[in-house]
Amino acid sequence: MNLHGASIVVDPEAAAPSADARHIALPHQSDLVPTIAIDVGGSLAKIVWFSQHGQGGRLNFAKFETARIDAIIHFLKARAISADEAMHPAIILKATGGGAYKFHDRFTQELGVVVRKEDEMAALITGLNFLLQQIPNEVFTYDERRVAQGQDAMRYETDAFHAAQYPYLLVNIGSGVSMLKVTGPQAFERVNGTSLGGGTLWGLLSLLTKASSFDEMLALASQGDNKNVDMLVGDIYGGDYGKIGLKGSTIASSFGKVIRMSPEERAHVKEPDIARSLLFLISNNLAQIAYLTAQHHAIDRIYFSGFFIRAHPTTMNTLSYGVHYWSKGAVQALFLRHEGYLGALGAFFTGDSVASSSRQRAPFDGAAFAEDFAKAEVITPYTAVGSLATVGRFGPLACLRRPYRPDTIHSTGSGRDALLWINSMKRASPFVELIQAHDPSPSAALRAAEFSRLYRDHMERLEKEPHLYGHLSLRFLLDLREQCLREMGFSDIFAPIKAKDTEIALQSLAACVAATDALASDRERFLALVSNVLAGNMYDWGAAALQDALFCGAGSMPLSSAAAKINPGTASHDSNSSPRIITAFPRKMLLFTDNSGPDAVLGILPLARFFLQRGTHVILAANDRPALNDITAEELTALIPRTRTIDPVWADALARGQLQVMDSGSDSTCLDLTRLAHALVDAAADIDFVVIEGMGRAIHTNFLARFTVPALKIGVFKNAHVAEALGVRLFDPLVKFELPDDPPTDASCIRCETLSIQE
Amino acid sequence: MNLHGASIVVDPEAAAPSADARHIALPHQSDLVPTIAIDVGGSLAKIVWFSQHGQGGRLNFAKFETARIDAIIHFLKARAISADEAMHPAIILKATGGGAYKFHDRFTQELGVVVRKEDEMAALITGLNFLLQQIPNEVFTYDERRVAQGQDAMRYETDAFHAAQYPYLLVNIGSGVSMLKVTGPQAFERVNGTSLGGGTLWGLLSLLTKASSFDEMLALASQGDNKNVDMLVGDIYGGDYGKIGLKGSTIASSFGKVIRMSPEERAHVKEPDIARSLLFLISNNLAQIAYLTAQHHAIDRIYFSGFFIRAHPTTMNTLSYGVHYWSKGAVQALFLRHEGYLGALGAFFTGDSVASSSRQRAPFDGAAFAEDFAKAEVITPYTAVGSLATVGRFGPLACLRRPYRPDTIHSTGSGRDALLWINSMKRASPFVELIQAHDPSPSAALRAAEFSRLYRDHMERLEKEPHLYGHLSLRFLLDLREQCLREMGFSDIFAPIKAKDTEIALQSLAACVAATDALASDRERFLALVSNVLAGNMYDWGAAALQDALFCGAGSMPLSSAAAKINPGTASHDSNSSPRIITAFPRKMLLFTDNSGPDAVLGILPLARFFLQRGTHVILAANDRPALNDITAEELTALIPRTRTIDPVWADALARGQLQVMDSGSDSTCLDLTRLAHALVDAAADIDFVVIEGMGRAIHTNFLARFTVPALKIGVFKNAHVAEALGVRLFDPLVKFELPDDPPTDASCIRCETLSIQE
Repeated sequence: MNLHGASIVVDPEAAAPSADARHIALPHQSDLVPTIAIDVGGSLAKIVWFSQHGQGGRLNFAKFETARIDAIIHFLKARAISADEAMHPAIILKATGGGAYKFHDRFTQELGVVVRKEDEMAALITGLNFLLQQIPNEVFTYDERRVAQGQDAMRYETDAFHAAQYPYLLVNIGSGVSMLKVTGPQAFERVNGTSLGGGTLWGLLSLLTKASSFDEMLALASQGDNKNVDMLVGDIYGGDYGKIGLKGSTIASSFGKVIRMSPEERAHVKEPDIARSLLFLISNNLAQIAYLTAQHHAIDRIYFSGFFIRAHPTTMNTLSYGVHYWSKGAVQALFLRHEGYLGALGAFFTGDSVASSSRQRAPFDGAAFAEDFAKAEVITPYTAVGSLATVGRFGPLACLRRPYRPDTIHSTGSGRDALLWINSMKRASPFVELIQAHDPSPSAALRAAEFSRLYRDHMERLEKEPHLYGHLSLRFLLDLREQCLREMGFSDIFAPIKAKDTEIALQSLAACVAATDALASDRERFLALVSNVLAGNMYDWGAAALQDALFCGAGSMPLSSAAAKINPGTASHDSNSSPRIITAFPRKMLLFTDNSGPDAVLGILPLARFFLQRGTHVILAANDRPALNDITAEELTALIPRTRTIDPVWADALARGQLQVMDSGSDSTCLDLTRLAHALVDAAADIDFVVIEGMGRAIHTNFLARFTVPALKIGVFKNAHVAEALGVRLFDPLVKFELPDDPPTDASCIRCETLSIQE
Repeated sequence: MNLHGASIVVDPEAAAPSADARHIALPHQSDLVPTIAIDVGGSLAKIVWFSQHGQGGRLNFAKFETARIDAIIHFLKARAISADEAMHPAIILKATGGGAYKFHDRFTQELGVVVRKEDEMAALITGLNFLLQQIPNEVFTYDERRVAQGQDAMRYETDAFHAAQYPYLLVNIGSGVSMLKVTGPQAFERVNGTSLGGGTLWGLLSLLTKASSFDEMLALASQGDNKNVDMLVGDIYGGDYGKIGLKGSTIASSFGKVIRMSPEERAHVKEPDIARSLLFLISNNLAQIAYLTAQHHAIDRIYFSGFFIRAHPTTMNTLSYGVHYWSKGAVQALFLRHEGYLGALGAFFTGDSVASSSRQRAPFDGAAFAEDFAKAEVITPYTAVGSLATVGRFGPLACLRRPYRPDTIHSTGSGRDALLWINSMKRASPFVELIQAHDPSPSAALRAAEFSRLYRDHMERLEKEPHLYGHLSLRFLLDLREQCLREMGFSDIFAPIKAKDTEIALQSLAACVAATDALASDRERFLALVSNVLAGNMYDWGAAALQDALFCGAGSMPLSSAAAKINPGTASHDSNSSPRIITAFPRKMLLFTDNSGPDAVLGILPLARFFLQRGTHVILAANDRPALNDITAEELTALIPRTRTIDPVWADALARGQLQVMDSGSDSTCLDLTRLAHALVDAAADIDFVVIEGMGRAIHTNFLARFTVPALKIGVFKNAHVAEALGVRLFDPLVKFELPDDPPTDASCIRCETLSIQE
């Protein structure tokens, strides 16, 4: 059996399939997953299937016109059978939508597979909840009035908790429209519906215009002026009807102006005007019915899904405007990048994926996904999506407060920030050079060149359209670079550097420990340890401002010279604040690590030792997979036994369970505290202190995160633009100690010299 | 000035005006009412104007396409100015709708009248409340599922109280749609609206079909099959989607089937199919939004108005079905026969009608209207309406219980009842003969022939379509005959007979009084008096079963021989019931009288005397205007002083106020107890006994009426079909004494011999 699906391109309005870039990759999925899911609606059939991909696998997406059922069956056959192999007996076709019933016999007979019908509404909810819980940047709002305020019309949902909250209303706009009230993971009810949906727009415009595809119709609508056919309040009143708050520009009667036309005028009505009027008609009406339904059920968030939307700006703006207008701003219209695939995704993830009774647990049960944009193809600015990779089960840190927005700065305005960030990160050459330095093979050279091209293409796209893939943040750019490297097979180009840096650092560890132990008080010791963390954190191959220095003298820069690059503690804008004192040693702390080498060895290990010696249970959380020179959980676990000869504290504590090294579940240089490995979430449920280290984890992300326990954020501002945005200077240190009752910070930080620890 | 408007015919879709029969006559309105009201909507302009007519006047209705503003102004000019007279300076054009603003200057300048803008929404409510409160048979429901049960799809609102209750939702469907929540006479709020209205259907069908008028489009829709273009649930699912309760026949996507068509198939889509699908689309959508709006405001009645409906069965059925479906039967869709004229009527009745400051009170303030079908022209079975005549202010009897349905039997089923009634009443010849007998003038002969033709035409129309003018009842047929007589100038053809009968009866009055006085007990006296009422009531020129007998020996039939025709009291189906005993003499009683002659003189006057002598305050309520040989209040008032020489009880009681003769406000042989003259309503506020006499008032109507005080209904079943329908025999007597706590009756009656009075 071969489930290795190429990215086949499917064009819904044409007989020949065309590419749909909405693929979800499953790098950790090594089992075969012989499942294909299909959602056969009145007009379109949506297909999701699994293919192996590198370490794991990928979910692929395609859509067809339902009418082309022969082509669909042919396509499914090609996905389900390898060229010269008999049909795998255990393969399952999960089918939903009306076609699951209508074409059940054809699927069964012509494909020879087990066809399992999944309830359409349940599948929609499973699919949506999957997207809400697992896919960052899935949800966005759209409001063109923002443009006048210098903002983008589109804005991604940034509160990691918000999107997945209940209750919500799902308005799924296919040929017809279903409205579902959702109150829990599988608690939903179809509370409304209407026959005025995508099929109505498409059908009527097929009769009224020469456009032959839905996208052509939408393109027509973009060029039209509905005022030529719609009767406005002003056409009847000569202006506003102020007494009941109707503006002259409000549509009083859709197509009402056509009545007054002479037969000749009617014959010359322009197709774009008709298309635009009809698009408004359907969208306004949907917004109104959706609002009335939400109002009745006391719901304030409406997700619009289905292929009707197609990320068409006029459609989204009309739906948003309508919901805002009718609800006076109380209800929010939300859109989804995978808008059309809810049913198919839901069917894919429903129940067991394999027919074999030997397997009780569905292969994706509890699996989590990370979005991979490396090979994303662009559909429109609002739906360009990459693939999604399994990252193990995840959940939020228990002591994290809501709302939580991981990223400190988003580019939501003019895109100026975005362009500065893109500019500061666009150089791929250091990475290519690094690859070439360690792997002179022709294959590596070819792949490095391909990486360079792939990455450059992304950056060029983003320069033109910064929000192409979601809301732009430094985290996104950092992750994108990692994804491009991985896509080209470079899963850990810093491995040699990390190993070398760690070896060198280990040589200084004994002296480092002795020096801090020799200090007179815990207060002095703690300050010295924090200073070492800051100095160690300067060894950062990911910081453009340091790359040249590192490449010049990699591994040889002594900690003191690194510390010397950090600005002396006088320039803080917050220097007048009184010192923050850690009044008691924590019982159990969680420390998110950053880089390999001096950072981990000379910064983190001695800091952990300080707390271990004073009875604290310490969890060191490190990345699941390599990202830049960040230390991974695997590397950290291997490192600790090697310290035994220097000082047995770490290894002994590890042996007796006082020190835990845990996989954070992350493969990013940044950190989303709602997407942590489940084992870590469980272990950290009762911590009373959290430490987050590094620019990516404590500045680019989590700078504004708040906790129900005391928190320490340590890092150095190594990015000039971020430093400027937060009002500090390049190479200013960050040592931010926060208590649960502190008022929310915006961009203020507390300097290290104002932090102390009670003896 | 001449406001005498001919019934000018206005065709909204043509340049030349065409007749609209929806006229309201104001027979009691003798003042000039120089008011024209116009409601200028986006597509149609509706005009209401006053014209003198016989004793009173008539409100006339016309509609134009708004686009033909020149024709409208020309038409208004013709209504406002006589041929050779200067414009009346005091004339007012009341204008509402958007055009009131848009065309204000043209109206002012070109018509030279005062233009007063009336708020559109307020005018709608004023107009609707006028119709609900004043026009019987205005409101109906429509449900084609009734046909399968052998009933008419249409059913009139028969509870006289129900229609005018608050709150309700008004959905006014013009080019666009407004939805108003109405909580009191002028307490309303526009709570919703949609641009998908009549203009949308008309506009889109102008583009999609060759039909050139809205009515042509509706005719197309009647012939079409929407399943050829709509995608049904069954088209997607192959059957029902039972899990969420969607039937296979439900429209899943309006016009959704067009998507799957080839360009050739699309070119051959049938216009009727398109028209029907679009009619369903708009109507379903309106029903849904109206329901959601009603639901939010906890309203259970929705009135649909506006010229979109045009009494089109498919439209009404779709709106009704939709509201029923979405509300699970909890909300009712109601329609109006004057559906399109709410705004114009409301503007007409808003505020003062005359500019002159000398007149403080609007001429129609407090006026009530009765519907006059005599000259009605037929538009459709659901909107054929006659004119309305002022009948003074009216109100409901205070002791009347709700609900109240005046008519005992409606023909709502197969129309068999209706045909029997029509057949029993279709002879106009006795009336023509009567006219000829008393007025040999050529004019009378001509008018009698015209009456005969007019009445026959109505009866022939009704034989074909029994519910043409509203719900058919015997009352309606009796009133229609009176209206036709009045229309031809015969306001009182029974005057000579009534006078003669009264004279003859007066000769027997002394003997009659002496005979009952001579009886041994009050019990016997009371029974004798009731028997005399029954015997007197046999003198009824309106009862076909008695007409021949009366014409043979008019006025000469002694009371005893009349009594002999009444069936002896043995055949009652209720003879086993125990006697009902009137246990105390009433303090104040109201007695509705019936016929002139023996009935009033020998039946009612002695019965009244019995109570007067025992201290009861007696109000005798008689008709305001002549109807058949019923005695009028004027005639009764003239009669009583003539009894002084026989027995001074009546005249003395009248003089000291113990006896009142009052105008009931009615001009019918039947009686609607919610439409009584205000003076009578006030005087009867504290009665503790009500007596209703006669077939029309106690059998055709009020047989099922219930009261909060004891009530006595006396009459004779002189109509064979009614007797049959109520399970009694022709000439059975009715003496029905009811106490407030009695269970509701259906068709049971209590015989006279079981009634007694406590000594």
